[in-house]
Amino acid sequence: MTGGAWLDEVRGVVDAELDRRLPPDHAEPTPLYQALRYALLAPGKRFRPALVMAAGRWLGLDPQDLLPAALAVELIHTYSLIHDDLPAMDNDDLRRGRPTLHRALSEDVAILAGDALQPMAFEWLMECRAEPERRVEALRALARAAGPAGLVGGQVRDLHPPAHESGVSADDLLALHRDKTGALITAAAVLPAVLAGDAEAVARLTRYGQAVGLAFQITDDMLDVAGDQLLMGKATGRDARQGKTTFVTLHGIEGAQAIAQQELAIALSQVHGASADALHALATFVVERDH
Amino acid sequence: MTGGAWLDEVRGVVDAELDRRLPPDHAEPTPLYQALRYALLAPGKRFRPALVMAAGRWLGLDPQDLLPAALAVELIHTYSLIHDDLPAMDNDDLRRGRPTLHRALSEDVAILAGDALQPMAFEWLMECRAEPERRVEALRALARAAGPAGLVGGQVRDLHPPAHESGVSADDLLALHRDKTGALITAAAVLPAVLAGDAEAVARLTRYGQAVGLAFQITDDMLDVAGDQLLMGKATGRDARQGKTTFVTLHGIEGAQAIAQQELAIALSQVHGASADALHALATFVVERDH
Repeated sequence: MTGGAWLDEVRGVVDAELDRRLPPDHAEPTPLYQALRYALLAPGKRFRPALVMAAGRWLGLDPQDLLPAALAVELIHTYSLIHDDLPAMDNDDLRRGRPTLHRALSEDVAILAGDALQPMAFEWLMECRAEPERRVEALRALARAAGPAGLVGGQVRDLHPPAHESGVSADDLLALHRDKTGALITAAAVLPAVLAGDAEAVARLTRYGQAVGLAFQITDDMLDVAGDQLLMGKATGRDARQGKTTFVTLHGIEGAQAIAQQELAIALSQVHGASADALHALATFVVERDH
Repeated sequence: MTGGAWLDEVRGVVDAELDRRLPPDHAEPTPLYQALRYALLAPGKRFRPALVMAAGRWLGLDPQDLLPAALAVELIHTYSLIHDDLPAMDNDDLRRGRPTLHRALSEDVAILAGDALQPMAFEWLMECRAEPERRVEALRALARAAGPAGLVGGQVRDLHPPAHESGVSADDLLALHRDKTGALITAAAVLPAVLAGDAEAVARLTRYGQAVGLAFQITDDMLDVAGDQLLMGKATGRDARQGKTTFVTLHGIEGAQAIAQQELAIALSQVHGASADALHALATFVVERDH
């Protein structure tokens, strides 16, 4: 199996389920559901849901029982993209190859659609089939990944880096991305093990997720330098224009590539056996993707 | 007991606990915790936490077991105020008598602080002492109140009212406020009963919360016309300047006052006995307050 094939398979299931849960003729006569559909049904890789489903496959769990967790993680990711794109944040016009939500509709609706996605994510997560105490633990894992010690904390640190005379250090950059992109990717990998109550799998998938998250960000930095704007579906070369510290500015393209390969090796070493095929394929996909 | 006395008592506990949980010397060297402290420790009525604790008192629950639920509701309320005040929304300069968060710090940090408060609320709610399945139900209740069928849905409808030739009807206004302010107030009243697994109390506190929420909004509308900007801690008279439909424009001051009194009577009729004193006092406070 290739990572692309697994992504395609999960994308089909996830897109159909999102479409089912957000009917176009929804009773709600406001722009909110229009905004939610626009953002959630945009063409996306569905990488985080694919991680959830791949980890579930490794653990031998029923995919249906995990689907709400896969959707929940995608909802948190989508809200973070909507808010990151806002004028007061990255001020982006293009996302997933289309106008960003605040450009397509309006800024207030974009803020509120993002706000709606968070409680939706936590509510949907509770639909997973698992013992209530496991669902409570899963909620904690996702909330921590989304909160001040995760995604939001990393985003604040990215926009307002701690002031050092020497600029952003390699450690700062690792900490930033551990929170900004790593926390949610790690949560995606870990949630199935939390729901199954398998402590050893939680530990292995945590290390797997952290390595994959870091490899993902390093590859993003390399693609921002070398990637094709059309394939990426968003502006490229911005890091350099903004004078941003990235894995490429700190370590060069070859140095960054070497770290990504190390992280891939760490990820692959965490999970073994035939049922780990999708986890292996996704980790490999991350460092080999061209968008 | 007066509503004011109960609010004072709960405020002391809530403020101390928020201060304890958000230490000023937090390890996080970014503006995020500064923003969270600024927003959460601003002088507030703590009306929703007071409702949580009053409902718990009625049910004979240990206040310590409920405190995380009281904080969770206040976190959701605080995030909604931060985002409502943003330039793309109500564009307010003043909140609780001080500059709004985006004026005091910056717009990006205000958006992100609001974003951080949601997962924090759901994570903190899980700290309530109750069976895991009750905590899952409590999570669902709070998430629904915060989401598209609650607070966010109401806010979207307020900013983008459904287009009727005849303007906003009395039914539209009721539906708007049922979601925008009523859903979270109702959740605050109901959470203790959900955590206790008491279905009859859930039903009674739902009706109580809906009535109190409506009375609260009607009184807000009256105070916007007649209230003192200094006491309110925010601009007054804005509804009229914006040509907004309110309970006062639809029913006049006396008509609005009469509806508020009807709702108060409904709220009072739901809960009985000596331990309902705080719930009664808060409902009465809502229609008699001057800010």
